[in-house]
Amino acid sequence: MSNKKKIGILGASGYTGAELVRLLLRHPKVEIGLLTADRRAGQMMGDVFPQFAPYQLPQLVTIDSVDWAAAGLDLVFCALPHATTQTVVQELLSKAPDTKVVDLSADFRLTDPAAYEKWYGHAHHALDLQQEAVYGLVELYRRDIKKARLVANPGCYTSCAILPLVPLLKAKAIETDEIVIDAKSGMTGAGRSAKEEMLFSEVSEGFHAYGVGHHRHMAELDQEFSKAAGKEVTPSFTPHLLPINRGILSTIYVRGRRGRTAQDLHAILAEFYAKEPFVHVLPFGKTPQTRHVRGSNMTMIGVAADRVPGRAIVVSTLDNLTKGASGQAVQNMNLLLGFAETVGIDQPAVFP
Amino acid sequence: MSNKKKIGILGASGYTGAELVRLLLRHPKVEIGLLTADRRAGQMMGDVFPQFAPYQLPQLVTIDSVDWAAAGLDLVFCALPHATTQTVVQELLSKAPDTKVVDLSADFRLTDPAAYEKWYGHAHHALDLQQEAVYGLVELYRRDIKKARLVANPGCYTSCAILPLVPLLKAKAIETDEIVIDAKSGMTGAGRSAKEEMLFSEVSEGFHAYGVGHHRHMAELDQEFSKAAGKEVTPSFTPHLLPINRGILSTIYVRGRRGRTAQDLHAILAEFYAKEPFVHVLPFGKTPQTRHVRGSNMTMIGVAADRVPGRAIVVSTLDNLTKGASGQAVQNMNLLLGFAETVGIDQPAVFP
Amino acid sequence: MSNKKKIGILGASGYTGAELVRLLLRHPKVEIGLLTADRRAGQMMGDVFPQFAPYQLPQLVTIDSVDWAAAGLDLVFCALPHATTQTVVQELLSKAPDTKVVDLSADFRLTDPAAYEKWYGHAHHALDLQQEAVYGLVELYRRDIKKARLVANPGCYTSCAILPLVPLLKAKAIETDEIVIDAKSGMTGAGRSAKEEMLFSEVSEGFHAYGVGHHRHMAELDQEFSKAAGKEVTPSFTPHLLPINRGILSTIYVRGRRGRTAQDLHAILAEFYAKEPFVHVLPFGKTPQTRHVRGSNMTMIGVAADRVPGRAIVVSTLDNLTKGASGQAVQNMNLLLGFAETVGIDQPAVFP
Amino acid sequence: MSNKKKIGILGASGYTGAELVRLLLRHPKVEIGLLTADRRAGQMMGDVFPQFAPYQLPQLVTIDSVDWAAAGLDLVFCALPHATTQTVVQELLSKAPDTKVVDLSADFRLTDPAAYEKWYGHAHHALDLQQEAVYGLVELYRRDIKKARLVANPGCYTSCAILPLVPLLKAKAIETDEIVIDAKSGMTGAGRSAKEEMLFSEVSEGFHAYGVGHHRHMAELDQEFSKAAGKEVTPSFTPHLLPINRGILSTIYVRGRRGRTAQDLHAILAEFYAKEPFVHVLPFGKTPQTRHVRGSNMTMIGVAADRVPGRAIVVSTLDNLTKGASGQAVQNMNLLLGFAETVGIDQPAVFP
Repeated sequence: MSNKKKIGILGASGYTGAELVRLLLRHPKVEIGLLTADRRAGQMMGDVFPQFAPYQLPQLVTIDSVDWAAAGLDLVFCALPHATTQTVVQELLSKAPDTKVVDLSADFRLTDPAAYEKWYGHAHHALDLQQEAVYGLVELYRRDIKKARLVANPGCYTSCAILPLVPLLKAKAIETDEIVIDAKSGMTGAGRSAKEEMLFSEVSEGFHAYGVGHHRHMAELDQEFSKAAGKEVTPSFTPHLLPINRGILSTIYVRGRRGRTAQDLHAILAEFYAKEPFVHVLPFGKTPQTRHVRGSNMTMIGVAADRVPGRAIVVSTLDNLTKGASGQAVQNMNLLLGFAETVGIDQPAVFP
Repeated sequence: MSNKKKIGILGASGYTGAELVRLLLRHPKVEIGLLTADRRAGQMMGDVFPQFAPYQLPQLVTIDSVDWAAAGLDLVFCALPHATTQTVVQELLSKAPDTKVVDLSADFRLTDPAAYEKWYGHAHHALDLQQEAVYGLVELYRRDIKKARLVANPGCYTSCAILPLVPLLKAKAIETDEIVIDAKSGMTGAGRSAKEEMLFSEVSEGFHAYGVGHHRHMAELDQEFSKAAGKEVTPSFTPHLLPINRGILSTIYVRGRRGRTAQDLHAILAEFYAKEPFVHVLPFGKTPQTRHVRGSNMTMIGVAADRVPGRAIVVSTLDNLTKGASGQAVQNMNLLLGFAETVGIDQPAVFP
Repeated sequence: MSNKKKIGILGASGYTGAELVRLLLRHPKVEIGLLTADRRAGQMMGDVFPQFAPYQLPQLVTIDSVDWAAAGLDLVFCALPHATTQTVVQELLSKAPDTKVVDLSADFRLTDPAAYEKWYGHAHHALDLQQEAVYGLVELYRRDIKKARLVANPGCYTSCAILPLVPLLKAKAIETDEIVIDAKSGMTGAGRSAKEEMLFSEVSEGFHAYGVGHHRHMAELDQEFSKAAGKEVTPSFTPHLLPINRGILSTIYVRGRRGRTAQDLHAILAEFYAKEPFVHVLPFGKTPQTRHVRGSNMTMIGVAADRVPGRAIVVSTLDNLTKGASGQAVQNMNLLLGFAETVGIDQPAVFP
Repeated sequence: MSNKKKIGILGASGYTGAELVRLLLRHPKVEIGLLTADRRAGQMMGDVFPQFAPYQLPQLVTIDSVDWAAAGLDLVFCALPHATTQTVVQELLSKAPDTKVVDLSADFRLTDPAAYEKWYGHAHHALDLQQEAVYGLVELYRRDIKKARLVANPGCYTSCAILPLVPLLKAKAIETDEIVIDAKSGMTGAGRSAKEEMLFSEVSEGFHAYGVGHHRHMAELDQEFSKAAGKEVTPSFTPHLLPINRGILSTIYVRGRRGRTAQDLHAILAEFYAKEPFVHVLPFGKTPQTRHVRGSNMTMIGVAADRVPGRAIVVSTLDNLTKGASGQAVQNMNLLLGFAETVGIDQPAVFP
């Protein structure tokens, strides 16, 4: 009999669900025991994602059909749309309180109920869990995550901005009122729903900004930046859509505080991440490319001097489906279940 | 006998050369009388760009083989590499002083010899012509261009930043020390030379910044911005490479001066360009996409409020080969030869 | 007062509709008088396709709201889904019998009512018009088209196969039972409806066949091939989807009849199309690329010898939205309204 | 002390070299002991492929600098250009005769010296080794490979055609004189050399055939097909270039022999590959997509009936860098070194 931990994935027909399956299929310490996908229930995973046809996986079922108490799941990944997540997780944890949950939606990322209500337009339906949840960016909250039951996996844009900026804010090394984050994301970040603006012919051979001046990931940025800086921080942030599948790259413009140079900022980041397996700081002056983290859980960060005196340009990149979502989620799972942090997610990037 | 004007294109085997041929083949008032391409001399244009095989065009020749005095050219487009351009244009104008020249290289864009020397690493070889040359951004220098003999066609990145920013700087509507220009360009902007980093497999499905902190187009930006503002302006500028063929999009972060709001900035631009055929300012809050200017000479500009009080986000886009190079060059030609400004370049964009 | 012909476009919010607008906006002899788009009625064309925002165009209306008798349209392009087209065209021609119609759907392409019923699953609703309609491939039916009222614009796949094969079949130069057509199309051929399998992330960086063994364009191929050969011809035909926007390329495998070599086949095609403005036969042994016809109305055809004795490989390409749909439709319009055949559609391809 | 096997990679700066490093870095039973790259000698692998910067790898050296006898390598992958390979492998095996070699070039694939000379234009320089080499398509030559010292890894196009066709030829189930293989490959199959026709702007948004009627992979096809059929077989084969990085898809047209239907052919393939870990035969009538094997060592094969009676369409796909090159090479390594066949190469595909 297998002594592997038994894992469930809610929302397996989306891209983050598929990425979880990809990573878990070769994770030596777990087995997939449950896959839900309400609209595709009754089908096999290979019908929804043909790359999995050669593998043995449980049939897709609806969430409602799951008996949480009897399911015997050690950990559940929740890759459901925002809002429905709250009630599903509440139900799950009331029936199976010992199950660990890593939630990939935005539902438990904001700690302030008022902030949640402001950005999402309704009161949170599971305030207790909102308070219980730990923000799942391992590099910043490793200790808390190890003790947690419910982890809120961070957003892809936010991870790509928090990782380079929080160490600088904690060190009070940059001005807090001049931060500009120009972020570009591959299309998988927009999910798998069939919308005209996401059709191949609307996206390929082109580029554009969206949500200019107002995007929900700003709430997470504000929360984490303000916490790090010890005061309210409101960065400028503009997301754009790249005609690629995977990858986020953020070009971040900052001004050093009290004479800090770009090299000083680089030194802070290099030291902060020196021992981290999933954050690689490039030599000063070099900047990273999305393609070199494709399919991997790696974050790459570069720092260069701006020609404008006192200013620096920080460039960070990660794969939005891996370190920006499902790889990060498995990293959280590894901590929650007591595994080595890198197991199952240490593959190098797929380039070219 | 045709009374069309006779046009030469130097450097016809590159992308801007091909774009000139595309536009001129259907221009009703000109005919192509000369095509040079040193490495492809002796071949037909259809060998170098098969889309032109069905058309009658002169055989490619070397520049050295041209007898400028006898060539009888009314206007020459010079699409040669930087630096070699200077001596070629000098030779041409000394032999055929009545020929008009539109130069697509950077050689005559900077008016200050010292700035040229600083950015290009050597003294200019044709200082008289450098002083004579007019900066060929029609929307700003229309009058001067009409009287010119030598026009320096602007760079693609610079056009995409100057068009949205110069009206704001002239109106003293934005702070000059907080301008951030995050620019993204399609690959044709990098030309047609065979380099490893430009291979399909190195470029597709990825994205990156380059020349971070130091890029030659900065010299043009500084020149035109400082002239418009009446004082020295040094913007932050970061170019990136998009996995698309055509299109530049610049996301520009500015702070309004003396209480100017984003809507005020929008109003300035909308008024400035109200009658321009090749600049379209979108309604306030909307931002443009590269795909909607593809293959056309149109520039699209949008302005939105940043959530950071006092800041605005300006997004501009143009096709780097058309309005950013060859379309702009034909627009200059139309003025130099006394044609209506829009003739031959008024095609709508090719989307999808 | 304008003496331009007045044109209507039904179904202007789809890709073939947009391509018609692109071509007609710069056609010197027509003006767009009507644009319909049922789901987008009340909006401007620039809301649906932002590249047209700078242009003056009629507001989008529903088809039901049009008074055909009063509309005063000289010609209507019908770019509607299959089946609904029949009743719309019947209604239109009953109210405005002098209006010319170019239909871009498949509804009037098949002359045999039984064939229509077999492939489309229902009896044709306008049998009289089905008989009246002329198949609108200009290179084969130029004379009939000039006298027609209703023209059935051919399918994109079919045009790309009929143009290279019909001259060979007419000359009885190839075996009719060994024709293999391996066809690859860009995504715009699939239209603009929001389907999961057409999302960018499902399409980019990949390739696949579809409709293997059964595709409706086969009906048109059978009809035209059999007519040309004077006997029933049933080719093997497999369509594939390319991760590009525009372009069809067909690789066609044939066996020469009675000792005809590949060079013989090339000679037949070269002679057949010698004077055609929109079909370019390459030198023997050279084959074309989709990118060199992008955005143009050109078809390019190449013929090479197979190493298998007696066999030849014919490669043809066209832009599915231009020569494969809207450019072909304007070519038909030019004949129907007595204009020169090439006016408005003689632009060279947009490459790169 | 590690008891991992020590591996060398010759030609590590190319794409198949990088793919080998990607796979071997997480292979539990080997360690990379040598990386050569003549033009990049002295650099680190992370300079040539930045995705490897976070990993510990040997510095790149020239081939000439290697002391084969002292190197202590258990197995060497040779990913060098054709022709130079012969002398390098001969030298290597003369100095270190116990080293196993998996050669990814074409140099040892043809068993007939005359065939080699015909297709490559010169006599083979290592005829003994040519005779010794085993053709490394595991599914067909597993037993021979296990006993071999030198394995000739098959070509990517050929693997994608041999896997679906050889079982049918062995069963004498298809006519041998009507085989048409229409093959389409991603750009990484063309390697990493800087050529104009491989630039992003020349490749993206387009498609074309090349080597029509004459391509060196034909020699391998003829050899393996003729061997399987027991008589000379010469298929029609046309390669095309897709604007994607990874993936080959072959659409193969065959005629069943003696009444064999498409379903019969499907049954033969399904049975032949029932227990193979890296060949997945889809249900009858379904055909595969390149994206679903991306980055994996899986081959997917589908069979559908053609509407032409007696004919079938077989579609096969694999990742040209993995199963078509480096994954196949590691599969060979696993056999040569006595490991389980799937170790290190059992990752699911990376989609989207």
